[in-house]
Amino acid sequence: MTSTLIRGGLVVTAAEETHADVLVDHGRVVALFARDTGTDLTPSADRVIDATGKYVIPGGVDAHTHMEMPFGGTYASDTFETGTRAAAWGGTTTIVDFAIQGVGKSLREGLDAWHAKADGRCAVDYGFHMILADVNDRTLKEMDTLVEEGVTSFKLFMAYPGVFYSDDGKILRAMQRAAVNGGLIMMHAENGIAIDVLVEQALAAGKTDPRYHGEVRKALLEAEATHRAIQLSRVAGSPLYVVHVSATEAVEELARARDLGLNVFGETCPQYLFLSTDNLAEPDFEGAKYVCSTPLRPVEHQAALWRGLRTNDLSVVSTDHCPFCFTGQKDLGRGDFSRIPNGLPGVENRMDLLHQAVVDGHITRRRWIELACATPARMFGLHPRKGTIAPGADADIVVYDPRTEQVISAETHHMNVDYSAYEGRRITGRVETVLSRGELVIEGREFVGRAGHGQYQPRGTCQYLL
Amino acid sequence: MTSTLIRGGLVVTAAEETHADVLVDHGRVVALFARDTGTDLTPSADRVIDATGKYVIPGGVDAHTHMEMPFGGTYASDTFETGTRAAAWGGTTTIVDFAIQGVGKSLREGLDAWHAKADGRCAVDYGFHMILADVNDRTLKEMDTLVEEGVTSFKLFMAYPGVFYSDDGKILRAMQRAAVNGGLIMMHAENGIAIDVLVEQALAAGKTDPRYHGEVRKALLEAEATHRAIQLSRVAGSPLYVVHVSATEAVEELARARDLGLNVFGETCPQYLFLSTDNLAEPDFEGAKYVCSTPLRPVEHQAALWRGLRTNDLSVVSTDHCPFCFTGQKDLGRGDFSRIPNGLPGVENRMDLLHQAVVDGHITRRRWIELACATPARMFGLHPRKGTIAPGADADIVVYDPRTEQVISAETHHMNVDYSAYEGRRITGRVETVLSRGELVIEGREFVGRAGHGQYQPRGTCQYLL
Amino acid sequence: MTSTLIRGGLVVTAAEETHADVLVDHGRVVALFARDTGTDLTPSADRVIDATGKYVIPGGVDAHTHMEMPFGGTYASDTFETGTRAAAWGGTTTIVDFAIQGVGKSLREGLDAWHAKADGRCAVDYGFHMILADVNDRTLKEMDTLVEEGVTSFKLFMAYPGVFYSDDGKILRAMQRAAVNGGLIMMHAENGIAIDVLVEQALAAGKTDPRYHGEVRKALLEAEATHRAIQLSRVAGSPLYVVHVSATEAVEELARARDLGLNVFGETCPQYLFLSTDNLAEPDFEGAKYVCSTPLRPVEHQAALWRGLRTNDLSVVSTDHCPFCFTGQKDLGRGDFSRIPNGLPGVENRMDLLHQAVVDGHITRRRWIELACATPARMFGLHPRKGTIAPGADADIVVYDPRTEQVISAETHHMNVDYSAYEGRRITGRVETVLSRGELVIEGREFVGRAGHGQYQPRGTCQYLL
Amino acid sequence: MTSTLIRGGLVVTAAEETHADVLVDHGRVVALFARDTGTDLTPSADRVIDATGKYVIPGGVDAHTHMEMPFGGTYASDTFETGTRAAAWGGTTTIVDFAIQGVGKSLREGLDAWHAKADGRCAVDYGFHMILADVNDRTLKEMDTLVEEGVTSFKLFMAYPGVFYSDDGKILRAMQRAAVNGGLIMMHAENGIAIDVLVEQALAAGKTDPRYHGEVRKALLEAEATHRAIQLSRVAGSPLYVVHVSATEAVEELARARDLGLNVFGETCPQYLFLSTDNLAEPDFEGAKYVCSTPLRPVEHQAALWRGLRTNDLSVVSTDHCPFCFTGQKDLGRGDFSRIPNGLPGVENRMDLLHQAVVDGHITRRRWIELACATPARMFGLHPRKGTIAPGADADIVVYDPRTEQVISAETHHMNVDYSAYEGRRITGRVETVLSRGELVIEGREFVGRAGHGQYQPRGTCQYLL
Repeated sequence: MTSTLIRGGLVVTAAEETHADVLVDHGRVVALFARDTGTDLTPSADRVIDATGKYVIPGGVDAHTHMEMPFGGTYASDTFETGTRAAAWGGTTTIVDFAIQGVGKSLREGLDAWHAKADGRCAVDYGFHMILADVNDRTLKEMDTLVEEGVTSFKLFMAYPGVFYSDDGKILRAMQRAAVNGGLIMMHAENGIAIDVLVEQALAAGKTDPRYHGEVRKALLEAEATHRAIQLSRVAGSPLYVVHVSATEAVEELARARDLGLNVFGETCPQYLFLSTDNLAEPDFEGAKYVCSTPLRPVEHQAALWRGLRTNDLSVVSTDHCPFCFTGQKDLGRGDFSRIPNGLPGVENRMDLLHQAVVDGHITRRRWIELACATPARMFGLHPRKGTIAPGADADIVVYDPRTEQVISAETHHMNVDYSAYEGRRITGRVETVLSRGELVIEGREFVGRAGHGQYQPRGTCQYLL
Repeated sequence: MTSTLIRGGLVVTAAEETHADVLVDHGRVVALFARDTGTDLTPSADRVIDATGKYVIPGGVDAHTHMEMPFGGTYASDTFETGTRAAAWGGTTTIVDFAIQGVGKSLREGLDAWHAKADGRCAVDYGFHMILADVNDRTLKEMDTLVEEGVTSFKLFMAYPGVFYSDDGKILRAMQRAAVNGGLIMMHAENGIAIDVLVEQALAAGKTDPRYHGEVRKALLEAEATHRAIQLSRVAGSPLYVVHVSATEAVEELARARDLGLNVFGETCPQYLFLSTDNLAEPDFEGAKYVCSTPLRPVEHQAALWRGLRTNDLSVVSTDHCPFCFTGQKDLGRGDFSRIPNGLPGVENRMDLLHQAVVDGHITRRRWIELACATPARMFGLHPRKGTIAPGADADIVVYDPRTEQVISAETHHMNVDYSAYEGRRITGRVETVLSRGELVIEGREFVGRAGHGQYQPRGTCQYLL
Repeated sequence: MTSTLIRGGLVVTAAEETHADVLVDHGRVVALFARDTGTDLTPSADRVIDATGKYVIPGGVDAHTHMEMPFGGTYASDTFETGTRAAAWGGTTTIVDFAIQGVGKSLREGLDAWHAKADGRCAVDYGFHMILADVNDRTLKEMDTLVEEGVTSFKLFMAYPGVFYSDDGKILRAMQRAAVNGGLIMMHAENGIAIDVLVEQALAAGKTDPRYHGEVRKALLEAEATHRAIQLSRVAGSPLYVVHVSATEAVEELARARDLGLNVFGETCPQYLFLSTDNLAEPDFEGAKYVCSTPLRPVEHQAALWRGLRTNDLSVVSTDHCPFCFTGQKDLGRGDFSRIPNGLPGVENRMDLLHQAVVDGHITRRRWIELACATPARMFGLHPRKGTIAPGADADIVVYDPRTEQVISAETHHMNVDYSAYEGRRITGRVETVLSRGELVIEGREFVGRAGHGQYQPRGTCQYLL
Repeated sequence: MTSTLIRGGLVVTAAEETHADVLVDHGRVVALFARDTGTDLTPSADRVIDATGKYVIPGGVDAHTHMEMPFGGTYASDTFETGTRAAAWGGTTTIVDFAIQGVGKSLREGLDAWHAKADGRCAVDYGFHMILADVNDRTLKEMDTLVEEGVTSFKLFMAYPGVFYSDDGKILRAMQRAAVNGGLIMMHAENGIAIDVLVEQALAAGKTDPRYHGEVRKALLEAEATHRAIQLSRVAGSPLYVVHVSATEAVEELARARDLGLNVFGETCPQYLFLSTDNLAEPDFEGAKYVCSTPLRPVEHQAALWRGLRTNDLSVVSTDHCPFCFTGQKDLGRGDFSRIPNGLPGVENRMDLLHQAVVDGHITRRRWIELACATPARMFGLHPRKGTIAPGADADIVVYDPRTEQVISAETHHMNVDYSAYEGRRITGRVETVLSRGELVIEGREFVGRAGHGQYQPRGTCQYLL
């Protein structure tokens, strides 16, 4: 096993900014050495990475991706191979993807299928959440088993009637089970029943362009569902994690719940922080590139999201990476926005966009790491292996150059999709070197990893509950 | 210089719980070594402390003490010598005490006087806040100088007219100055003008017992002043730190402000978490032992304070240590509660009481360290030297035995005061060993430190502001 | 036509308390004469009623009754004949009952059926709301017709899946229609989908007693549905009237909405103001007498309801009169609380209970009339005919003796039900004389009216919208 | 005594809109007769006023005027004679003016002085509030006497240190007294201590133009004082009436208090509803015309005020009429905005401006009368004589033409001031005829009243308290 010493950098974690050298061996962080203390203990190592003038940060944990996800007759365009490789390029060393239960099928079948897709193909480590599409007595029992196996979080949908939708009774029952088995309920909080009425009315009125996707999926209906999910979780006595929060009003519901001391958590995504309905309104069907649910909101909502990230009413930034090519996939919805595959590419861009937020003064350097690495790791039971640089932790480490500029573009990105949602955006900061469990994955702007290096990570339960 | 290795313990910081060995040299943490990783790097050291089965935690930072403070014709009974020794016994390795400006005097004079009291006498490190008793053009200018010298926080009083009281204009002006020079305004938030009317009325009505101290200092008047201080800080554009928050309604004001994303912070103290008006109502003038301001509240308020500590609407637990002996000091107020010297002993008990809160399930282990060590260190510009165990940090380290039981009592405590506010309370957990900058202060339940080891700590500015 | 002069009383309306004589002719109030002004104009009349020392108040408007309502295989025990006669005894001169659409049937069929039940049988005037059990394109169109005919309010249920339940899409569509046609959506706000899960779980756990009815229908699930209905109404742009609000948390949602200036209104009922879960827990299945939905709440909720009535976050007190005999009806649910017919008798008691609230200091005399007469009349488009005593208004007038005491009892009441929910309760105040459109209905504690005097009242739209 | 019949109009009160004829005799309303009921009882009268097509409304009650008020070395330019004549022109038949206690003087002296100014000079009726400038044991006792004499409301200032300012202790003491004697505390809620610091800083920075008056008197400092006054009133157990509310944030504090069911009331004024900081910024010192305190706010605040008027978080619209001529008075503040006499003319415009708000859809017709007539009458103990048209009420009646247009202008107004704050504003609606206690004051666009007709009105206590 090759030992590695990363020396000279500023080690930034959620908690500390330390001038320290990091010694890696057997895939883990084995020691941290202070610099310039008058005691020079730093040992030799097989490989030395010079991080002078750079940040040494934990690899990113993207807790919300959908590789190869089936949607509306097509599939998200990134496989686990291409997607995790792109993740590595972007400084993310762990993803948690969503295995999907088919209606009428067992959780096991869904989970097995996703294991099959990922096994041997990933460049970085991965875990699975489970999407519950069919809550019943049998699947409730299966939840217990999955928690024991390390699939400790379960996503439910208040949207998409006829597809993933669960009614409030099913949601309540799943929450009650989670309250007992320690699972974390993740919620897509939009009132899909009401939204579908508005979709139908919009289409009937000839409003078929992508921008109507944003108009019918109203902020009030996201806030409503958020409030409802919170109340149901209170009745069940379970924690709740609301995914891809995009609306001011939804953040307010989270804040209200958290002021009560409830175990309620919120996630947002870079697209809601950096994009808006202005993008959805781009002409020539270009708006379709930005169709996802919850939808992009008017630009005023961004301030509320940034504030929520600062107040911790929003605790995690994930990508909801779910790419569909503009040509051949997104265009399935020409003439009917409701047929546009929902989802955006982003797994490669998250760490950079959030570093830009540091540069822009939205968040601190430590909060960047907390939102993108430490909190998702704790939230989903991957800590202390993931999300931090500490003795004993997995050596998932990124050397980040905080000063180099780059321009995001589909021409240079590594995700398997024909457009970028952030095309042309200038970013200060760039991933330089990436280690996954001590092995180099990105080095000198080259991918030096391999499909199959990434290992499945069974997860513990949420570490935020008292 | 003696190097020390603390091995075998669980290192608990605000951010991590790590099985690691800690190497100390030249008074600082020079390295952390993972255990059981297959790579055994742990070096030799002059001294090895076996922490097996124990917690290895940062020394406590008590950001609110009043050693030898003059009050109503007497002095707080702990000197810097006795008080810092007691602090060490209780696992606290840094205090921030309050230097007091005299009315009509310069800040410098007050600060010099406090330096004189502390210099060469302290067992552990110390810093100073400055109490502004007389805000005027000259003292506003002095604030800038003090910030540069490392006295970066300034306490103002909305209570105690005629003593420390500043009117809203003076408060606003001090806040405006702090907004520019980076100082942090600390506020005693009680409407003292209104309270003094109620005090006078109570005494006139023959209500002279200690419990009336609690009745006249109404929770609504704490909440009012808290709200007012927040609004003034918004006008001034300055951050605000509200000391010794005790009332549910005041926590609500803090929560409201923090939901807006304001730089507003709250501190509470163990006495508000563990004691109540029931203590103030103890017969035979025993209630006087519990007279402090803000006052103890009815027991229902405790739940709101614990919740505030979990939601981070309260961010720090300090002691407001300000002991007066029951005999000879507290009894100055027999027959007139308004003459009872205000204050409680506690610097020795804080870490233990908060560990008990961990045992009782109020807070997590990491939150214990965050509230008692890491956040006060960051809040008052002592991080990264203080408040954590990280490469390069000062080796202020406590080996804490989480299982031994103890009973708090004036007979065994080391504070220079003839009673304990927590007499007879059983605590699980006890400080075993204390290092201050690498030197042993407490070892084997003996004080092995010395007056004068403790050094003055100039402080940087608050690290929570964006 | 007989003219009537009511002289010597204190005329109390929602707006005024006036010492005035009231002249009635042709069924209407034709003049009001001041007393003791030095100008004595009071004319002669065919009949003079001496109201000296009494209140002269508008007849009550009970906007929520269910005469002969089918429920769980039985029928509410009051017919329109017995129910309206009891209403008259209790000082209520107008009821608005709920016609029910059958699933798969037209609104017209339901409305016709209710007209048939009521026609020629009522002692006092009556109108109809329409319960929408089956929202579809056809029934949405019918709503317009009904509004034009004077059935201007439509009740939807978020509870009772499989019976009256509408999903959020149906609710939204009905609200959208109401936003256009001026109808008022009335909402039974309980999350019935979630509640039914809890019911099933309770029964499976052997919790079959009436008190479990109160436990499973959780306050949080009333608040949730209230919030959801409010958000849906915001999306639709329609007003909203929430019926039988019983929980503190639901009142808070109403207050939040009303602070935003929304057209959202709340109704509560005497049972929530005067009874509690203590009644539901009465032994020997006596609790079944108090089974209604929303359920009775723990006694602490009463204070929030009284406060809501004072702050106008609750605007109307109706009865939800829906009586089932203890013997032969309520006992259908022995061994299974979910089979207990839901509903309480009360149409006769409302005016008296609310006068008792005046005596007890909960509300003012004018607020009594506002809650029980004026506001329901305006809310449901019966003003200015009903709900007040003003020139031109229908002469629906009650002479109320504010000093006589009575004891409520099934032995003396006139509702067709074998128990009283308020058995033994002592009330100060009693209805003395009742006129309906100028004709005596109650006189000298005798019923002198007749079935068929009461006329159907087509109603205008809600008068509270700006 | 001349009897008068007003026939054919629509009688609009806070509660009802009735087609009725109003008979007036001996200065009072002696009867109301329905029209078109088939019973024609309308009697003859000495004088008949044809109100066909017009509104018949209660005369306005302006509860906040300052006739001949001394301020900064000058006097408000309207005497009681000119001011009450202008009030009559504008449809206001009762004013409540503020008598002022001098510092060091008794309440009696101040009240006597104001009686002397008003006695024999008023065109319409008037009452007095008392400004407490010097709260002490003696004046607290005098409060009781004044309440008994019909001066039942007492204004305190949190602004204007050195002039009217009371500290929180004095405020608390006055509130405590009011809690006992039934008086209503009226509050000028601005943190004057903080504002004066900002004034001094602005002037020192050369910011001397009128618009800086608006900048330094910050909305947050109005909200702060509002909150403080509310908390003090809770401690004292007294009701509270906050005058001239102008800021969104202050309305929010009132809403919060009222949601708690507190006896807290808010007043706003037409200038805050129709004018803004845009006016204060008018060039050539024209902004001085709009200098009043609380100050005009940015135009966005208007929406919050209108909403507050609809939700009843604001209950009264008064004028705070306090005119100073632009030439010779306002210009005392050229080069120093703090020397501009504070106040605007408006007593003549209030009823018209609020009718325009009806036309514009901000409020309903009945709410117009409630805000401008009924509620101030009840709030200040003038009901049932004033504020309504009901049998026995004083015949203070306005025939209002809702369709005629007028343009407000200093050239045509009757206030003794050389400018109009609403110059050029087009209004739909105009006062046609005004009766005060049955006597014509305005008839056919002529003033036919006389100085001395107006009588002093001793007042009862606030009628809104439960």
